[in-house]
Amino acid sequence: MRRVVVVGGVAGGMSAAARLRRLDESAQIVVLERGGEVSFANCGLPYHVGGEIPHRDALLLHTPDSLESSLDLDVRVHHDVRSIDREGRTVTARDLVHDVDVVLPYDALVLATGADPIVPPLPGLDRPQVRTLRTVPDADVLRAMLAAGAQKAVVIGAGFIGLETVEAFRRRGLDVTLVEMAPQVLPAIDAEMAALVEAELRLHHVDVRVGTGFAAVEDSTTDHPVDVVLADGSRLAADVVLLGVGVKPSTALARDAGLELSDRGAVVVTADQRTSDPSIWAVGDAIQVIDAVTGVPGVVPLAGPANRQGRTAADSILGRARTSQPVLGTAVVKVFGLTAAVTGPTSRRLTAAGVEHHVVHLHPGSHAGYYPGAKPVHLVLLFTPEGRVLGAQAVGKDGVDKRIDVIATALRAGMTVDDLAELELAYAPPFGSAKDPVNMAGFMAQNILDGTLRAWGPDDLDGFGDDVLLLDVRSEVEVEGGHLPGSYNVPHTELRDHLDDVRQAAAGRPVRVLCASGFRSYLAHRVLAQNGFDSASLDGGLMTLRAQRPGLVLQRGAARMPGQKAPVMAS
Amino acid sequence: MRRVVVVGGVAGGMSAAARLRRLDESAQIVVLERGGEVSFANCGLPYHVGGEIPHRDALLLHTPDSLESSLDLDVRVHHDVRSIDREGRTVTARDLVHDVDVVLPYDALVLATGADPIVPPLPGLDRPQVRTLRTVPDADVLRAMLAAGAQKAVVIGAGFIGLETVEAFRRRGLDVTLVEMAPQVLPAIDAEMAALVEAELRLHHVDVRVGTGFAAVEDSTTDHPVDVVLADGSRLAADVVLLGVGVKPSTALARDAGLELSDRGAVVVTADQRTSDPSIWAVGDAIQVIDAVTGVPGVVPLAGPANRQGRTAADSILGRARTSQPVLGTAVVKVFGLTAAVTGPTSRRLTAAGVEHHVVHLHPGSHAGYYPGAKPVHLVLLFTPEGRVLGAQAVGKDGVDKRIDVIATALRAGMTVDDLAELELAYAPPFGSAKDPVNMAGFMAQNILDGTLRAWGPDDLDGFGDDVLLLDVRSEVEVEGGHLPGSYNVPHTELRDHLDDVRQAAAGRPVRVLCASGFRSYLAHRVLAQNGFDSASLDGGLMTLRAQRPGLVLQRGAARMPGQKAPVMAS
Repeated sequence: MRRVVVVGGVAGGMSAAARLRRLDESAQIVVLERGGEVSFANCGLPYHVGGEIPHRDALLLHTPDSLESSLDLDVRVHHDVRSIDREGRTVTARDLVHDVDVVLPYDALVLATGADPIVPPLPGLDRPQVRTLRTVPDADVLRAMLAAGAQKAVVIGAGFIGLETVEAFRRRGLDVTLVEMAPQVLPAIDAEMAALVEAELRLHHVDVRVGTGFAAVEDSTTDHPVDVVLADGSRLAADVVLLGVGVKPSTALARDAGLELSDRGAVVVTADQRTSDPSIWAVGDAIQVIDAVTGVPGVVPLAGPANRQGRTAADSILGRARTSQPVLGTAVVKVFGLTAAVTGPTSRRLTAAGVEHHVVHLHPGSHAGYYPGAKPVHLVLLFTPEGRVLGAQAVGKDGVDKRIDVIATALRAGMTVDDLAELELAYAPPFGSAKDPVNMAGFMAQNILDGTLRAWGPDDLDGFGDDVLLLDVRSEVEVEGGHLPGSYNVPHTELRDHLDDVRQAAAGRPVRVLCASGFRSYLAHRVLAQNGFDSASLDGGLMTLRAQRPGLVLQRGAARMPGQKAPVMAS
Repeated sequence: MRRVVVVGGVAGGMSAAARLRRLDESAQIVVLERGGEVSFANCGLPYHVGGEIPHRDALLLHTPDSLESSLDLDVRVHHDVRSIDREGRTVTARDLVHDVDVVLPYDALVLATGADPIVPPLPGLDRPQVRTLRTVPDADVLRAMLAAGAQKAVVIGAGFIGLETVEAFRRRGLDVTLVEMAPQVLPAIDAEMAALVEAELRLHHVDVRVGTGFAAVEDSTTDHPVDVVLADGSRLAADVVLLGVGVKPSTALARDAGLELSDRGAVVVTADQRTSDPSIWAVGDAIQVIDAVTGVPGVVPLAGPANRQGRTAADSILGRARTSQPVLGTAVVKVFGLTAAVTGPTSRRLTAAGVEHHVVHLHPGSHAGYYPGAKPVHLVLLFTPEGRVLGAQAVGKDGVDKRIDVIATALRAGMTVDDLAELELAYAPPFGSAKDPVNMAGFMAQNILDGTLRAWGPDDLDGFGDDVLLLDVRSEVEVEGGHLPGSYNVPHTELRDHLDDVRQAAAGRPVRVLCASGFRSYLAHRVLAQNGFDSASLDGGLMTLRAQRPGLVLQRGAARMPGQKAPVMAS
């Protein structure tokens, strides 16, 4: 009889245990969990705090009893594993209820010890108002604080948990300030996409402080119990402070046992989840994973990979050949009415890893524009100069998760932008367009690569002086609402009739075309390029540019027409 | 200067013309359209009839004027192309307004002549109450009939257009009877999935008559203007009859010009959309396409492929290497509150093409069950004995199009069920599950292929007599609500304690396990198989079985427990 001990009874650990039982009815399977709950809905915690999930029981997907009756698992909660005797193949766990040590022998050991919230070494974080949100008791405490009348919350960290907790607090009527050290919210996506999320937060009256470190939690100067002190010296009164600055692998047990760890303290495993000890497997947030695109090792605390790693570990323990895939980091978050999703590395991370890449931005509708309810899907696609898909991000009110899932599948398959262009996705007016946003992204990328589309972006803007002609091809009405200072205006529908005027105004200078979303400027660019101009089209149009450059000031009123003399302009 | 003539100004034709202009500013591009509208939203017509799209103008995405100003296209409506002089490279079109012939020379000709509604040779179909829905004027007529007080509608044909028009008519308050010759609605999906759609139609008070031919439209015997006479002799009073029995390629022009046609009358083209005449390209509903999975040629009148074929044709005309992909037939339809979608061939079509395949049915939630609003996604996955994905269908209220789009991408990539299991899709509680429905389908298929899961289905049920033991592993409460006559009941959580009883009751016979959805019976099957039983688990559970066997009668009350003596039962 095979004896298996699983340390950690959520996600990866429980997946391993369940799969093991389904494959091996005779094994003795013991699951040891330090906390009081197993198999709970970690990802549901913010929604329980916010009240969308009103009943605590809904988070408890299984109990030790239900796991015993359904899967014949010996699940022991409040058991904190303190040490592994690799030589003797035993683990020693502290039974926290009876305060005794239990020694369990194993033939195979699965470490699913997860990750712990990072608590920076700053003063005052041990105060009772400062909380993290990782377990059901964490949620209990936050709910109790809200029930007791908390009014002001400060959330430190604008990652997934931070943003979900911001929404939960706002839903419960609290004033919320969100503090993030990075210059943007949601560092998992690129800045110009995160700007859309930040706008949604502000729309919902969240006080967003990006690019701001926090320094301490101190005695109150108001009638709220504590002050959060920021690096810039400002003080925020708070009833509750949520610390959401990330997690770190919880691997003290593995370290003490002498298992190989990465320099970030994650357990190093093979593709079949085996650690440096062939009798010990590890899964989930505690382990090091390989980025599928960059090949860079890292930690990716996500539920999906954890669950699949558990399944792989079970198969591996039983000698079935199965390996886990490198991780894409596909993720999604709901932020009030908006959805933000990503697959693969960001442009920032690709650059850091030295991966040469192109970027296209587009803003197609979630479904056919003539059918009611279509919303823009703000989409960015990253790809190599050879056309291989590297990643994508999307933000919008509808259809965002679908497009990212499609591209995540394409990314896993090693598809190219040509493949995206030819994907045959389900179309009817309520669901998409005959040319789906993913197809459109493929088309644009093809056009970039074969030179049909030449793009310019915000970095070029910085270099612009009088040495280029900025040509806004939107309608006059749109231009009057706000345009780039110094730009000329010819609506794209009139461009062919004004080519001579443009030529005269350009006087040999390059023409940089722009419109709202990048489509009309693409059409105009094609006209200009084929008429001998050095032209390029603004990638993603003003919509993307304004997200990239939040400080950008547009000028109201009519812009110059190329046939006209330039008006006298300030600047 | 290159002279290009495009025949047909919707979808494929207009895509070709627009792309041509973007790539070649100097070409002379003439688009000839028989009707009065170009570039109209064909797929939006039912929604205009139903009123979701109240304004007719919303359907007209472009006009000849807007196409002239934006893309410098010479678009001529009411021009019916009557002949092609391939030798002299000219087309002759009838200007239907001025009733004169126009002769246009071409260097390249694109045929995008589309398809016409099939009108069976049955009596009475020329009556004014009998309509089709393919053009904007068709929609105008239907709206006028509704405005004039039509109360009773008969829709002939339960394909996409038929179902969308059924919904439109119901939305406008009409009594609707849906008549379909096939034994199911929506023949594009397999019968057990279509049964769910049929139930939704009935829920919305549609009188569904499947397996019923129709014979004629005759003089009225009521105060409604006509009677629809069915093959079984029954008569349906109607104010309006919508004929939605499919379309056929509109290729008289190509035929008369001597271009190669398929035996179904579709224009035969190469992968770069070239016809048997190297100066003539063809795209869209008029052409023959190759099924990506079976390799069987056919016609697939879908907007997505048509648009991409137009793009390919433009590139090909300009000497750019680009080819269209074989067609998957990915499609989706909204039917009241339900969505039904498909990619790849149905099981029925695979069988007809002689493609050996496995099938798994599952019913996972559209997102995490603990987050409010999750709905079942009824999903079927088809795959080869080697594990290659062949197709999938899904029906449900939420998240259906997303899962089919993911599988359509996997199908295009040639992925296996192992790949589906390892897909890393975007997960947060409002959007999915850590194990997404697509992952689950992959897991199940893996289990089938490696023997971990052995399935039985409705065909086996027919053969069952006393020679098998039917074991229902749902809870007693569920079983009392209805169970298969003759089945035994042991809740799966109690199975390990009753193995001896089951062994005694089975007396060496095979055990066929079932539950509601197939998951608990899978767990029970694993227990039984590893304890020496000849066991198998009902694929998709009772949910699928009842859809496969609409006539199946379940028995109320408690079922036998294996330890008990069998009660005296009326068979």
